[in-house]
Amino acid sequence: MQLEEIVKRIRPLDESAMQSARDRQKILTKPAGSLGRLEELSIQLAGMTANPFPSLERKVVIVMAADHGVTVEGVSAYPAEVTSQMVLNFLRGGAAINVLARQAGARVVVVDMGVAVEIDDESGKLIRRRVGAGTMNQAQGPAMRREQALASIQSGIEIAESEISQGADILATGDMGIGNTTASAAVACALMKQSPESVTGRGTGVDDDGLKRKIHVITRALKINKPNAEDALDVLEKVGGFEIGGLAGVMLASAANRKPVVIDGFISTAAAMIAAALAPAVHDYMIAAHVSQERGHAMMLEWLGLKPLLDLNLRLGEGTGAALAFHLAEASTKILKEMATFGEAGVSEKG
Amino acid sequence: MQLEEIVKRIRPLDESAMQSARDRQKILTKPAGSLGRLEELSIQLAGMTANPFPSLERKVVIVMAADHGVTVEGVSAYPAEVTSQMVLNFLRGGAAINVLARQAGARVVVVDMGVAVEIDDESGKLIRRRVGAGTMNQAQGPAMRREQALASIQSGIEIAESEISQGADILATGDMGIGNTTASAAVACALMKQSPESVTGRGTGVDDDGLKRKIHVITRALKINKPNAEDALDVLEKVGGFEIGGLAGVMLASAANRKPVVIDGFISTAAAMIAAALAPAVHDYMIAAHVSQERGHAMMLEWLGLKPLLDLNLRLGEGTGAALAFHLAEASTKILKEMATFGEAGVSEKG
Repeated sequence: MQLEEIVKRIRPLDESAMQSARDRQKILTKPAGSLGRLEELSIQLAGMTANPFPSLERKVVIVMAADHGVTVEGVSAYPAEVTSQMVLNFLRGGAAINVLARQAGARVVVVDMGVAVEIDDESGKLIRRRVGAGTMNQAQGPAMRREQALASIQSGIEIAESEISQGADILATGDMGIGNTTASAAVACALMKQSPESVTGRGTGVDDDGLKRKIHVITRALKINKPNAEDALDVLEKVGGFEIGGLAGVMLASAANRKPVVIDGFISTAAAMIAAALAPAVHDYMIAAHVSQERGHAMMLEWLGLKPLLDLNLRLGEGTGAALAFHLAEASTKILKEMATFGEAGVSEKG
Repeated sequence: MQLEEIVKRIRPLDESAMQSARDRQKILTKPAGSLGRLEELSIQLAGMTANPFPSLERKVVIVMAADHGVTVEGVSAYPAEVTSQMVLNFLRGGAAINVLARQAGARVVVVDMGVAVEIDDESGKLIRRRVGAGTMNQAQGPAMRREQALASIQSGIEIAESEISQGADILATGDMGIGNTTASAAVACALMKQSPESVTGRGTGVDDDGLKRKIHVITRALKINKPNAEDALDVLEKVGGFEIGGLAGVMLASAANRKPVVIDGFISTAAAMIAAALAPAVHDYMIAAHVSQERGHAMMLEWLGLKPLLDLNLRLGEGTGAALAFHLAEASTKILKEMATFGEAGVSEKG
């Protein structure tokens, strides 16, 4: 399905399912409201799925990887070849996201959105949607062409729709790409009209000099490319990344298909900003997993109007925070379905 | 085992297991420190269990119920008979703690520490350790006798040691008892030497008048009973509760047996304060599950030197927050055990 159609298909939350969930929370054997954010989340999930008893059994984390031309500017603590090495690690099940997804009972879908080198995948599990062999250096010109920006979003839509057609109840977004905190910070600066100083963090761990260099590079990229804050595609094209566009597509398709989508950390949130700028209604289908240690992330979540579930000083990406948040989302739906009511349990109500 | 022996048996964290875990976190395929609190937690769990690869497979939530004489003062939004009704709900599996423990793969152990009426338990699962038929009204005199305070802690120790001898890897504490936020607030005021206004919250949901009454009752209880802040047993006797003493016993026995214990909300934290006042070393074995919406809870956690994992506006008790936190504790140990190292995965290290 094309981007414009997907955007049009995103409906508001289902008020009747939400009302049913809200009413039920009041008669379950606990003081009304005493499960706090779990109660709110259960009601929101009912609205997303148009089901008063939503089920989140089948969980999928979509991890998108891509390389970034801007790494030649020395903006990362790790060499660029780590992107492809980590993709192999994902495929072999040895990365943090594999461990946390296994614990959550979630499938991990690994997508090559444009890693610099072709990956020799012995597992046969890698999904190849290479928009290019990494983006261009945004400090010298646009990161990609407009048709590549569109193609990355389009690929995300198709991958999400394929998972949904195979039965996914809930999706989560994850990323891998050396240099992608630089691209994400640039996207966030462009859309929020904020200075690079206020948004840029240490990523995988650059030192003080590295941080200064990163801020300088983003400042230059914004100056050279002049991304148009009113045109999210232009922002993605000028200073984004293939995985950022892909993840935005995953979010749009999730919302269009009434599936909740759990947003991971800094990079996923930059993608969420692109998605929300393209289709504000996507917001209601987003669950912010956590607020990361990366500078600017809290500000980006606030711009989106999302309140994170967890605050654990994570700064890894890959979808790790999102995989942890699956447990809370599912807990909220199990409360709705499995708890006894005051009537059923013979428990007296508030005096 | 007697209280004094248990206190003596609590050892410091095992530094060698912690160092192994710390070293391993540095070579796993992620930037060192990027899993934030999960990494710290995995190292602490290694220290608690004296095992560089701790396993938290067998999980137990110990839910202790008791009644409180102080309810005659009108300090709760719910009638006192709800305590026994909810115990039956726990035994039938219909309460929030049952749902969340099932999701976590945890056993729920329900203990009658002194509910006002004898419970007709058809399930045969209820553990009876009745220290009395509820405490006395602390607004008129001591809540219990000193030997009852000791007996409640002793029962908690025995129940925890029985679960540990059956193989529990990690324990969590939960409570049920109409009126027990009043007793817990009084315990916290006594130990922290703080005013009732700064600690007392709405519990299951009293209105403004109810809150004023509650603060007035706690003020009176502290004035009449003069609990000695330097003697935790005296505090428990004068203004505590049977479940509060029992949960303190569970924590002491967990620590003495090198098992992590997850502290739930307001009532469990009051019990943790009693335990820590009796044996400061118990602190290192405690994991604070969450900071609740109940006024004073954050201050109590700070007094204990514990940093909560979750902040979800919960205020239910029963061990619900603790059951949710099991997932994070286990995640941290799975990271340690299941992730590939840089060497194994052929991933380049920091440049």
